Amino acid sequence: MQHHPSSLPRRRMLAGSASALAAAGLASFQSQALAQTAAPAAPAAKPLPGYASFKNADAVIVHSSTTIETKRSAFGSSVVTPTNQLYVRNNLPTPPESIVADRDAWKLQIDGVKKPRQLSLAELKTMGLETVTMVLQCSGNGRGFFPSKPSGTQWTVGAAGCVVWSGVPVREVIKALGGVADGMVYMTGTGGEVLPAGIDPKTVMVERSVPLAAMEDALLAWEMNGEPVSLVHGGPLRLIVPGYTGVNNIKYIKQLAFTAKESEAHIMSHGYRISPPGSKGDPSQPSVQEMSVKSWINSPIPEDGNQAAGKVQIQGVAFGGMNAVKGVEVSTDGGKTWKQARLIGPDMGKYAWRQFVLQAELPKGTYRLASRATDDKGNVQPETRGENQSGYNNTSWADHAVTVTVA
Amino acid sequence: MQHHPSSLPRRRMLAGSASALAAAGLASFQSQALAQTAAPAAPAAKPLPGYASFKNADAVIVHSSTTIETKRSAFGSSVVTPTNQLYVRNNLPTPPESIVADRDAWKLQIDGVKKPRQLSLAELKTMGLETVTMVLQCSGNGRGFFPSKPSGTQWTVGAAGCVVWSGVPVREVIKALGGVADGMVYMTGTGGEVLPAGIDPKTVMVERSVPLAAMEDALLAWEMNGEPVSLVHGGPLRLIVPGYTGVNNIKYIKQLAFTAKESEAHIMSHGYRISPPGSKGDPSQPSVQEMSVKSWINSPIPEDGNQAAGKVQIQGVAFGGMNAVKGVEVSTDGGKTWKQARLIGPDMGKYAWRQFVLQAELPKGTYRLASRATDDKGNVQPETRGENQSGYNNTSWADHAVTVTVA
Repeated sequence: MQHHPSSLPRRRMLAGSASALAAAGLASFQSQALAQTAAPAAPAAKPLPGYASFKNADAVIVHSSTTIETKRSAFGSSVVTPTNQLYVRNNLPTPPESIVADRDAWKLQIDGVKKPRQLSLAELKTMGLETVTMVLQCSGNGRGFFPSKPSGTQWTVGAAGCVVWSGVPVREVIKALGGVADGMVYMTGTGGEVLPAGIDPKTVMVERSVPLAAMEDALLAWEMNGEPVSLVHGGPLRLIVPGYTGVNNIKYIKQLAFTAKESEAHIMSHGYRISPPGSKGDPSQPSVQEMSVKSWINSPIPEDGNQAAGKVQIQGVAFGGMNAVKGVEVSTDGGKTWKQARLIGPDMGKYAWRQFVLQAELPKGTYRLASRATDDKGNVQPETRGENQSGYNNTSWADHAVTVTVA
Repeated sequence: MQHHPSSLPRRRMLAGSASALAAAGLASFQSQALAQTAAPAAPAAKPLPGYASFKNADAVIVHSSTTIETKRSAFGSSVVTPTNQLYVRNNLPTPPESIVADRDAWKLQIDGVKKPRQLSLAELKTMGLETVTMVLQCSGNGRGFFPSKPSGTQWTVGAAGCVVWSGVPVREVIKALGGVADGMVYMTGTGGEVLPAGIDPKTVMVERSVPLAAMEDALLAWEMNGEPVSLVHGGPLRLIVPGYTGVNNIKYIKQLAFTAKESEAHIMSHGYRISPPGSKGDPSQPSVQEMSVKSWINSPIPEDGNQAAGKVQIQGVAFGGMNAVKGVEVSTDGGKTWKQARLIGPDMGKYAWRQFVLQAELPKGTYRLASRATDDKGNVQPETRGENQSGYNNTSWADHAVTVTVA
């Protein structure tokens, strides 16, 4: 188990404080601004935080009170990631349970449209219904594979899952409000987190802008995997922007605004930027938004112990971000040679992942297993990661390869 | 909440006994042979039995220790039924937890093939991998709508769910064992339940035969909805026969045999038969096997309370059993007039259900909401149920209609 190195000292400082949970959340958010510290020795397994106590402790790695990763061995082969195994990454402490006590009473302010107004969740539920299956993935998933050890949670593959959302299409709501106001080119969502007093809200608030085009497939979702969205995953109402990294999918959304400029919140202007190694984030750099083609193997993996010689079903997940997956190749020799894997299970749309399997015959030995996906636009998952200061968007097939011993 | 009328006296008799759970399971199984008794007054909500304690108590109706129904209001609109809301119907008491302690060690005997042998789950996992999404539905789902009040659990709509299974195709396993032996025309699965002593095993064992053709899409599944199959749903290994009612999907399967004759177990020969009203089951009558086209509305429903006048999203689920759903019509006047609903969300294959929605404009008044599905072979969901002694296979759209008040 790996750990978020730079937030540890701060968390220890606050240990025992009644506000430890809240402070830990803030520490996590602010960690990007903190100097990187040496990684501590691997700590003992942490207990699940109370607000996520329904998670399956055997299937997850608790990095901190606000960062929980799905174990690579837990992804299975049934497409949809069960809610009790889905990763958690909160930028701020979770709002109080009271916001999900009367879900239908939740209010969303909509601005930057011809007829701005506030809508309750009960009203939104009358305006349309659609379902989208999508890969929800933290921008920093795969950060743990960067040799530069960027500050932040050392996720390997488990800050991702494939989940089903239901709600009203944003485009239906906007149509009912007369359409987007003239000159607006961004869709900006604001989270309903409780902000700490005495701090400039812009430095901590969760507010993200995405290009207006993302509205087309976006959803205001009240249901995830067949249940009302749990508080930990952004209930009662979450903005879903399919194909965009997790942070763009605003939890407990309280305001949806169509804007002429990107949000000036720090999390938009300086956070989640693709910054050259050694530099800080700034608005001139690309924001972490659209995901691109990626895959990894979930079985067999070293965590399973030695594999028996003979037939082996090499399996994993593949997704295209904004595009559907066309195919996946698997290598048992670290990428020297490749074989086409078979996609299995239902195709739940271009934003979902596909499971793949390759049946291999493996005699005793040591194998470097890798997978390489191609999307339907012809984009091929790259061998190398794109280096950046914060360890975002790691799609390298070489980084995601595993070494397995067959005995 | 409704209750299984005929098993109540026996359960009360045994209340407080250490073997109450086991006995209740048997009582439930044997209830078909008991004389029908008058329905008791609605009892207070029952607690979840220990082996199903992970179920969401707010989303289910506990009929008895072996029969748990999903609430109609809990189905949501996200296709896959979460495991913690899926119905439970066990014919016998659940085997001990120890059978899922070392899942890979579970043994399955395969007979009626050219090279009969025993295979461990670990071996099965090397032989192939496929995923199937299917409607799992108890043969008696909808029994509660029969005016004749047949003996057995008074399920309304919630003895059904749409779940994703992963495992090895039966055809792959059989191919590896040299193919089906000559003259075999049934696929017969035997459950691994612990049978009570002092009773002829045939009278209680769970063993079902399906036509050989069902093998083509059948799965030996170790995973359901992305997690190892839980004990309550038949883990470590369950036979999945897509399109066939629940009882044909053998839990904790310990033997899979290709046979020349149907099983002589009572549950096959006399149980689960479509018997004319007033008669007993016998082998000459059709067995409850393939499902056919069916749908129902899950929102709005009377349980939600009064609906606000104006736009309403009328939604529900539809499936074709052995065939894909082609379309669904919705009526707001009890079936006098119909409008085509819209299918939403991913198509997870012909054995899965589809969610449908019709946006209606409903002024104040009282409405009889009904849905009627058509499969891709042109079969239309019927208005009336097929009367039978045990209340099986109720697909009547009229029975599944709901009366909703718009205020």
